[in-house]
Amino acid sequence: MKVHLGWALVSALMLTAGTAQAQFQKPEDAVKYRQSAFSVMGTHFSRIGAMANGRVPFDAKAAQDNAAIVLAMSKLPWAGFTPDTEKVKSRAKPELWMEMTKVQAGADKMVAAVVALDAAARTGNLDSVKKAFGETAATCKACHDAYRE
Amino acid sequence: MKVHLGWALVSALMLTAGTAQAQFQKPEDAVKYRQSAFSVMGTHFSRIGAMANGRVPFDAKAAQDNAAIVLAMSKLPWAGFTPDTEKVKSRAKPELWMEMTKVQAGADKMVAAVVALDAAARTGNLDSVKKAFGETAATCKACHDAYRE
Repeated sequence: MKVHLGWALVSALMLTAGTAQAQFQKPEDAVKYRQSAFSVMGTHFSRIGAMANGRVPFDAKAAQDNAAIVLAMSKLPWAGFTPDTEKVKSRAKPELWMEMTKVQAGADKMVAAVVALDAAARTGNLDSVKKAFGETAATCKACHDAYRE
Repeated sequence: MKVHLGWALVSALMLTAGTAQAQFQKPEDAVKYRQSAFSVMGTHFSRIGAMANGRVPFDAKAAQDNAAIVLAMSKLPWAGFTPDTEKVKSRAKPELWMEMTKVQAGADKMVAAVVALDAAARTGNLDSVKKAFGETAATCKACHDAYRE
């Protein structure tokens, strides 16, 4: 159910963006957009990771704040994978453009994991955060291994 | 009141980030972070602008969705203006680092304007969106003119 909710949100955003106006003026803008959204998301995700991995003390409020931002960001980058960006230089492997159904499924899993991470952070329980962080990180890694240089 | 609310949110985020852990491993990371956050915000802000300026048809739902993202993003970039980033190449003018109180006031105005823009978008009224978009754009321009090459 979380999976469907997450993906519904992503799809709604993509549809909104697609129907209301041209999404990006140039393919390069779409690439910059998705990279920027991933970058901001990664910054906040890694702050949760630092707590989950014991590199910094656990701060429940900080974990919640960071997870809320990760959740908001997780819906954004997908709109930047427009077909016309295949020719723009980036770390996206050629496989990505041939396996869009799998990519969407991977995005779906990531968003679902982030929804669970956000819920875990709101419990204030470090063990729950650790578990959800690890599960989310695995969804990141799966797509990066398959589709990112 | 909106001004105080907006700035309180920004300050809370900055404090959270500052106390819970080192914000950025390297100054370059902070610069990339703030640039990425501004870039994502600008993408969604410009989509509202396209409607406000009549370049694309007004779509109330799209305006709301974009304004909500602009609002979420508006709180983020400020944490990336850490003192140690003064030496990192970017478009920030030297004046920025000497006038941090003014910069904070400018950020404050921008966040307040974005709160109003989000409220305007939720009314579904194009004239309200146009007015709030113009007022928000003026707060962007004020800081860009003063502090960005």
